[in-house]
Amino acid sequence: MTRTSPAETPLGDSFHVYDTTLRDGAQREGVSYSITDKLAVARLLDSLGVGFIEGGWPGALPKDTEFFQRAAAEFEPRHSALVAFGSTRRPGARADEDSQVRALLDSQAPVVTLVAKSDRRHIERALRTDVAENCAMVADTVRHLVDRGRRVFLDAEHFFDGYAHDPDTSLRVLEAAMGAGADVAVLCDTNGGRLPTGMAETVTEVIARTGFRVGVHCQDDTACAVANTITAVEAGATHVQCTANGYGERAGNADLFSVVGNLATKLEMPVLPEGGLGELTRVSHALAELANIAPDDHQPYVGNSTFAHKAGLHASAIKVDPELYNHIEPTTVGNDMRILVTEMAGRASLELKGAELGLDLSSSPDAITGSVRQVKELEARGWSFEGADASLELLLRRELAAAEDHETGVDETPDAPFELESYRVSLDHRPDGEVVSEATVKLVVNGERVIVTAEGNGPVNALDAALRQALVPYLPWLDDVELVDYKVRILTDASGTDAVTRVLVESRDREREWTTVGVHGSIVEASWLALCDALAFKALRRDEQRIGGGV
Amino acid sequence: MTRTSPAETPLGDSFHVYDTTLRDGAQREGVSYSITDKLAVARLLDSLGVGFIEGGWPGALPKDTEFFQRAAAEFEPRHSALVAFGSTRRPGARADEDSQVRALLDSQAPVVTLVAKSDRRHIERALRTDVAENCAMVADTVRHLVDRGRRVFLDAEHFFDGYAHDPDTSLRVLEAAMGAGADVAVLCDTNGGRLPTGMAETVTEVIARTGFRVGVHCQDDTACAVANTITAVEAGATHVQCTANGYGERAGNADLFSVVGNLATKLEMPVLPEGGLGELTRVSHALAELANIAPDDHQPYVGNSTFAHKAGLHASAIKVDPELYNHIEPTTVGNDMRILVTEMAGRASLELKGAELGLDLSSSPDAITGSVRQVKELEARGWSFEGADASLELLLRRELAAAEDHETGVDETPDAPFELESYRVSLDHRPDGEVVSEATVKLVVNGERVIVTAEGNGPVNALDAALRQALVPYLPWLDDVELVDYKVRILTDASGTDAVTRVLVESRDREREWTTVGVHGSIVEASWLALCDALAFKALRRDEQRIGGGV
Repeated sequence: MTRTSPAETPLGDSFHVYDTTLRDGAQREGVSYSITDKLAVARLLDSLGVGFIEGGWPGALPKDTEFFQRAAAEFEPRHSALVAFGSTRRPGARADEDSQVRALLDSQAPVVTLVAKSDRRHIERALRTDVAENCAMVADTVRHLVDRGRRVFLDAEHFFDGYAHDPDTSLRVLEAAMGAGADVAVLCDTNGGRLPTGMAETVTEVIARTGFRVGVHCQDDTACAVANTITAVEAGATHVQCTANGYGERAGNADLFSVVGNLATKLEMPVLPEGGLGELTRVSHALAELANIAPDDHQPYVGNSTFAHKAGLHASAIKVDPELYNHIEPTTVGNDMRILVTEMAGRASLELKGAELGLDLSSSPDAITGSVRQVKELEARGWSFEGADASLELLLRRELAAAEDHETGVDETPDAPFELESYRVSLDHRPDGEVVSEATVKLVVNGERVIVTAEGNGPVNALDAALRQALVPYLPWLDDVELVDYKVRILTDASGTDAVTRVLVESRDREREWTTVGVHGSIVEASWLALCDALAFKALRRDEQRIGGGV
Repeated sequence: MTRTSPAETPLGDSFHVYDTTLRDGAQREGVSYSITDKLAVARLLDSLGVGFIEGGWPGALPKDTEFFQRAAAEFEPRHSALVAFGSTRRPGARADEDSQVRALLDSQAPVVTLVAKSDRRHIERALRTDVAENCAMVADTVRHLVDRGRRVFLDAEHFFDGYAHDPDTSLRVLEAAMGAGADVAVLCDTNGGRLPTGMAETVTEVIARTGFRVGVHCQDDTACAVANTITAVEAGATHVQCTANGYGERAGNADLFSVVGNLATKLEMPVLPEGGLGELTRVSHALAELANIAPDDHQPYVGNSTFAHKAGLHASAIKVDPELYNHIEPTTVGNDMRILVTEMAGRASLELKGAELGLDLSSSPDAITGSVRQVKELEARGWSFEGADASLELLLRRELAAAEDHETGVDETPDAPFELESYRVSLDHRPDGEVVSEATVKLVVNGERVIVTAEGNGPVNALDAALRQALVPYLPWLDDVELVDYKVRILTDASGTDAVTRVLVESRDREREWTTVGVHGSIVEASWLALCDALAFKALRRDEQRIGGGV
């Protein structure tokens, strides 16, 4: 593990994509990586092909010390160089006697990023030393590490605020580091208060005054972290520090995927190895899973909705000319164009949507007519298929089968795997204050009548429990299905009279996740409808698998 | 409702903050506003002081047509001008015979934003007409509207892509509109593919070549919508189109709160009326509630975590010198620095909130201590008082009265106007398919025990009906109270156990509207808690009115 520069990227060492998810990203509220998580994150980033992976702060955080130990033994990156982050020696001490500096060497990371104060006010008020000693701390530590074979980058903390306040002090800190052998002067917008125009001016000026190789590290407090990073590159920066999905303290950091997407597709800079760009979406979602944060559907380049089009008006135009309506071809970054079925649904968008779900409607105009009519009717009553592809697929398949039955005279419409006779749910708030929910379902499955009663912490929970208890003995494969999420929306004026409730149920088994919808005046009946669709969808996919598998 | 320019902002009509949450924001996947929601959104935006509120597309969407009808009768903005959005006349038709153009006039909106194609490829391939006819469509429609007293803005769709491809065509479209009397040429980055540097160049060039008043409308597909908007302003644009929290199609639009925050605090442009800036955080969160989207904790300026500092190395330095670690003072935008949300800051903000609700807590430290403790406990269990002032007021009043009772030895704690013994709700899905909800409540009011059973179209509705039937004979003034809206959010907590349900109930009588909250594992119990608070609040205000009225 001795690589100190990016491997196999067309730009080689002349441009650095530097990821700090494992240190700065981990500062995000709620993120807490285990060491195993950290190794998995590093492997994903390496598979994407980022140039540098900052693994953490050995010596300061025990978990990070251990991460570097395990990485030395277990992690052999194909593309990336591993970086340890740390601070300079203490004021008035010697670099070779500083335990924190020793920890950086002990980490065996071939590259070290040293953070140093570069705003005079921070040097004097937070560090409580003077500019000369601060510069000596930087120079001593850089030299100590370089002498021992490490490549060193300098993170100049609060650089932009400091440079605006007292430019000479900030430049002296850079000079101390670069004069002692550091390779890149990374200007950090630590408080995140900068805008692109000022960012470009300062980067241009610093390069002109020093001739140093300059990098940037931007925080998102003005919603400009990505723009600031890109603008800095246009101004001459050749090293960009980012985090996966923009995770980071406060408003977060510059999002790696947007930065790389912009550099590659807008500035035409091949900053990743061959094939890396097409992995953006997959890696972004996998890193969200590891951080235990729901992926942002609206994230540029990689979000599930980022190439989704709702405006029904243009669906027919989109079908003809998708490049007129997308800023890039979605597959470039491993994403996909989705069509949303909405109030404005027309034949063209339903046909497109069907194709996306693997259903060829083009040869069945009757099925399209029937589907459009049904979707419009249901949407007028408050249904929404936008987030409920599984319910829409069931609807389209039923219409398709009905149209075929009409032609062949044979009934092959896919059915729910059971028949409901009735259910009853009751909720008691008892005199002692206890609240109890109970559900009884009566249904017919495989020709047998089943009656089951179950309890739950709420009415829907009780109903779900009773339904499963009733069905699993007959349909054991349903045991696989898990209810992941449940969303409720009250619609006050769908019909102008009483409110209706729309319920979205997200389910999953070992292979996939799917979402179904139900709408009714009663939230319990709406939930029931969505639950039934969820099970019908599982049954359908299971039948397909069996047929596909040749059984 | 005839205002056509922003009222009471220091910059007057010379700079436009233009919000399109109700049209472009509603394009976001999953957002579906009712007409009541739309009116509430408009009122919040007006209270913030944006210059223009685009209400929707009358004539194209029935809901939007109805919104403008109701707005004409019920919405009297203090600061904003209301805008209708629509398209030009059809190719080969006359503006005065176009039903869509007529719908714009019928909407009674004093300002109209017309969208027009300004990319030659879209004119030819999507609209299937030529540049001359496209320009005639623009000029005819603008003149028709201006002649009838409307102020007109032009949204030049796909402007940046079009200008890059064929600048002369794009400029001809602007000239057609401005020559016919439009006021602002709004350059739209419809596909969202632009970066700040290119944005600045094009805006500068268009202004230099035409001398027109220019605005911008930016989408976030490169994560640069806010930066592009700000950069365009620096290049001379004086009209910015945004949406609340960046809601919009695909990756969304430029976030109103980040744009306004940057303009006001970084470019020192007073774009809102006096006091508006301090409302950013509150309005952002309220608009998230109305869209039924969880607020983004990491959103610049307004997120809950945006000024939160993980207690680390510099915790003590942050306490001494907060301005070294925040890019702005958080209270400027109505936010809070969370490292200081200790007992002390919690006390201060509750005291402030109390003052806002007309309660003087300053002389009762015990009441503040009790309230802080209770709010913290409840919030840890999923309660949220941000959108439920009435429940918070009840909580503060109870604590205040308890503290006074403790001093005086007399019990004057305000009680709910009745005591619950028990309730039972049942829901039947009968064998004939009919779904019936029924609720029985047993309670004590004015010393008498009452038992009432009622039906409803859902469990909550049935419970509400039974409660009213039981109480109104004893407390006839409750008859006045109407349930206006009802929102549900399922909270799947990090605790890893069961989900809880949070219910917000909005009620109104002839004088005011108020919102209450309830949280429980069962949606019915959560609704019950919010309903009880709603009635207790009515009782409280009624008592005050009687006292205030000297009766």
